Amino acid sequence: MAEDSQLLCRKDRYGGVIVETIKQECSAEEFKNKLEADLMKWQENGVRGVWIKISLKDAEIVPIAAQNGFEFHHAHKDYVMMIRWLPTDEPNMIPGYAAHYVGVAGFVVNDQNEVLVIQEKYTHSMQAHWKLPGGLAEPGEDLADTARREVLEETGVDAEFLSLLCFRHQHNFSFGCSDMYFVCHMKPKNVDITICEQEVSKCQWMPFEEYLSHPSLTETNRFIAQTFKSTVLQGSSRIATTDVPSIRTGKSYLLYSIHNCP
Amino acid sequence: MAEDSQLLCRKDRYGGVIVETIKQECSAEEFKNKLEADLMKWQENGVRGVWIKISLKDAEIVPIAAQNGFEFHHAHKDYVMMIRWLPTDEPNMIPGYAAHYVGVAGFVVNDQNEVLVIQEKYTHSMQAHWKLPGGLAEPGEDLADTARREVLEETGVDAEFLSLLCFRHQHNFSFGCSDMYFVCHMKPKNVDITICEQEVSKCQWMPFEEYLSHPSLTETNRFIAQTFKSTVLQGSSRIATTDVPSIRTGKSYLLYSIHNCP
Repeated sequence: MAEDSQLLCRKDRYGGVIVETIKQECSAEEFKNKLEADLMKWQENGVRGVWIKISLKDAEIVPIAAQNGFEFHHAHKDYVMMIRWLPTDEPNMIPGYAAHYVGVAGFVVNDQNEVLVIQEKYTHSMQAHWKLPGGLAEPGEDLADTARREVLEETGVDAEFLSLLCFRHQHNFSFGCSDMYFVCHMKPKNVDITICEQEVSKCQWMPFEEYLSHPSLTETNRFIAQTFKSTVLQGSSRIATTDVPSIRTGKSYLLYSIHNCP
Repeated sequence: MAEDSQLLCRKDRYGGVIVETIKQECSAEEFKNKLEADLMKWQENGVRGVWIKISLKDAEIVPIAAQNGFEFHHAHKDYVMMIRWLPTDEPNMIPGYAAHYVGVAGFVVNDQNEVLVIQEKYTHSMQAHWKLPGGLAEPGEDLADTARREVLEETGVDAEFLSLLCFRHQHNFSFGCSDMYFVCHMKPKNVDITICEQEVSKCQWMPFEEYLSHPSLTETNRFIAQTFKSTVLQGSSRIATTDVPSIRTGKSYLLYSIHNCP
């Protein structure tokens, strides 16, 4: 097969190849013919994982890849990644995609020792629960940034991160993924509440002791309140952050660990 | 349009509908016609998000959905989920997919105060680094289970979880996702090393003080070693787990928080 009739691709460091539909200048029919020829050649040459990144606008390539033994790996808004493992004498070594949701809530306590609590508009359970304001982290957000953004969006209160209280690791969340729910102790910069009408039905400042013993609290939320009492209120060690550079990216990232009280 | 010519779908609790290709008994051409008619009807009726779950074997539906304004949401091995937000007077409220990798390493220390360290076969950097054994969590695994599985796979050492030392939150990891890297203090049940030839090039027990001052350590790994010294070796509080039930699933999940020393 002539060199110029092959698919444009690049090698990865694990002995695989990556094809992107957006880089090919050919019709779906031509793509099909080239892919079939390339697969035979790659198999002869000991190529391991084959990745095809298919742009949304090239969606007609998806059934062609499926017919040629490819499976889905992951998708973003504007592309789907399909993969095929070629070696027949080695187990599939391609790592899975990100499988964790990260949610962050603010345990916002004001000068009067009152906690900022909400009731959600859309809820899983029939009973109304007093919850902490919070939501899902966006990629690239540190936990403090998610907590601040979500508390502000839901309640109108701008709050500052002080330390991490605790986190819960839950399984079989949406689409079979796992979920980590982090709770941050925060200090409000303003106390006036402005509810987000789309997500929140009620919001108020509740005295801490009333919150701790409230009958409509879930066991998780009661545990969080007890953690607040046994760490922050009693002045013990805290889970706080340290900035440490990464050799891989050259940027700095946050490490969360126990910071002992002086 | 007659009732029996519509796509089979179910409603979600946010005012949307979910279609699964596997539940339709129709050709791709029939699916296309039904989808176009249903979309008009859904728009008239104020339906919000429309989800189409397309099985790998029905991949020919993907270009049909793309032509009808659908985008990708996520994909698993055997299906891709496509979505379209119908309201024109309300911002898209469909939450994104899981965007976090979770990795777990074992800081395994034996009775002689030696740390179990490895060098990786496939590495990002040119310089060889002494690292901790570990790897990506699978959905459904608690951190201790990932640490135990990965340490055993890579080094042949079976180790028991004692407490969480620290974690790092890194951004712009694979495919634009973020990554959380948790490090667990562990105690080995056996000390004989059996290397995983596919992933590890070197593995040994290294005296803790030698590890702490080793020139080839990254700043992250030095921070982890210092955290071990300032918490475990000096007998301070620990980050440990408590089992708490969830009202949503009825199952119990682990909460990680500071457990004060008695």
